[in-house]
Amino acid sequence: MKPGRPSPGRLFGVGVGPGDPELVTIKAARLIRTAKVVAYFAATGRDSNARRVIADTLNAPRELRLEYPVTTETLAPGVSYETLLMDFYDESAKRIAELLDDGTDVVVICEGDPFFYGSYMYLHTRLTGRYPTEVVPGVSSVLAGAAAIGAPLVSRDEMLCVLSGVLPAKELEQRLRAADAAVVVKVGRNLEKVRGAVTRAGLLDHATYVERATMTNERVCALADADPTGAPYFSMVIIPSRGAPTR
Amino acid sequence: MKPGRPSPGRLFGVGVGPGDPELVTIKAARLIRTAKVVAYFAATGRDSNARRVIADTLNAPRELRLEYPVTTETLAPGVSYETLLMDFYDESAKRIAELLDDGTDVVVICEGDPFFYGSYMYLHTRLTGRYPTEVVPGVSSVLAGAAAIGAPLVSRDEMLCVLSGVLPAKELEQRLRAADAAVVVKVGRNLEKVRGAVTRAGLLDHATYVERATMTNERVCALADADPTGAPYFSMVIIPSRGAPTR
Repeated sequence: MKPGRPSPGRLFGVGVGPGDPELVTIKAARLIRTAKVVAYFAATGRDSNARRVIADTLNAPRELRLEYPVTTETLAPGVSYETLLMDFYDESAKRIAELLDDGTDVVVICEGDPFFYGSYMYLHTRLTGRYPTEVVPGVSSVLAGAAAIGAPLVSRDEMLCVLSGVLPAKELEQRLRAADAAVVVKVGRNLEKVRGAVTRAGLLDHATYVERATMTNERVCALADADPTGAPYFSMVIIPSRGAPTR
Repeated sequence: MKPGRPSPGRLFGVGVGPGDPELVTIKAARLIRTAKVVAYFAATGRDSNARRVIADTLNAPRELRLEYPVTTETLAPGVSYETLLMDFYDESAKRIAELLDDGTDVVVICEGDPFFYGSYMYLHTRLTGRYPTEVVPGVSSVLAGAAAIGAPLVSRDEMLCVLSGVLPAKELEQRLRAADAAVVVKVGRNLEKVRGAVTRAGLLDHATYVERATMTNERVCALADADPTGAPYFSMVIIPSRGAPTR
């Protein structure tokens, strides 16, 4: 260490769970309560879901809001969303690196779990190795969804498949046929496509639609009855194990 | 409700996470701290892992230890492990039902998450419908494992496949080939078979072996270097996403 330079701060990627503030872990609550800087991603003009979950715990002298520059809806023709996004993650990592260089720990909060489809990983891959990092796992929305519908998700030697609703219909159908239990995440406006794939895989009778699991406005219904208008991005379809464990 | 009969107790299936007592959720800690009866499964002659996780929180006037009658190793020839096990779950559900009938709430604690390969589900399917039930999701060992090795597990539109190490080698290999990211659970004495399947799927360089994630005796190494002797049942192999999210 050079004289006069503080030892670098630590980067924490902290999962805050699916939405219910009581589903935050003790460790996450401790880190958030004592953090000097709490950072989070947020969609343009919207609240951060992760921040909302831990609003009552939050105590940080400084919050760092990392606002997405644009949504897929607002793209000018010829502009690559991918490029804009990668520039944004570079810039976000740079802002965090400046704090870490000053010796300040930074807690990045994430809905669910940081390494399970979480945006935190874009910061992690840019900063790990250069700075000490620690990831605190959280309760994933997938397990919160299974708990909400009271259905054992996967047991014994079964295979669980987690799929993105963004995948093509044909691929979804094939993957669903091969799985013992499945969860389709990122359903949102892919709902009709997902429902079609589930139906053709012969699984519609077993499929439940869940939106905002464990939040106050949680909604659960048979996939057959789900209303495609207004399905939020963070909605999912759960097809629990059929084999399992009655007698 | 008949006069003189108390309203029935509630059954809670409560995930306590992967092992670190700080990875218990605030809700799980609250339910465990205030429970009249805390129940858990335990292997013959062994401590309950779930109980060990919450030992410092536990405050219940009564504990109900549900001890497996036998392990696969100790079976007499001609005796079906499956039948013994189902009898045991029936008997366990009966013992809990008696408490619920008396109006006593029962908290069943489970490692990880109750509906993710958890034994709690055998009680749940026997008692739900007859009694009010609630499942409190927990941090799964799979996500704790990914956090332990600092590797983003799955991102974007990738598919995550969770497999049991008990599956035949050929099936493991095929499933691994098809997945973007995979976790093999229940590795234990299937380690050599799992390593063979991972190798033939061309994934050995990407595979990490994790045992007892987040516990004080956690062990992490490349799958190539893992020692097959003494691998505990609750060990796993993680093959994180390769696509993801550097630039």
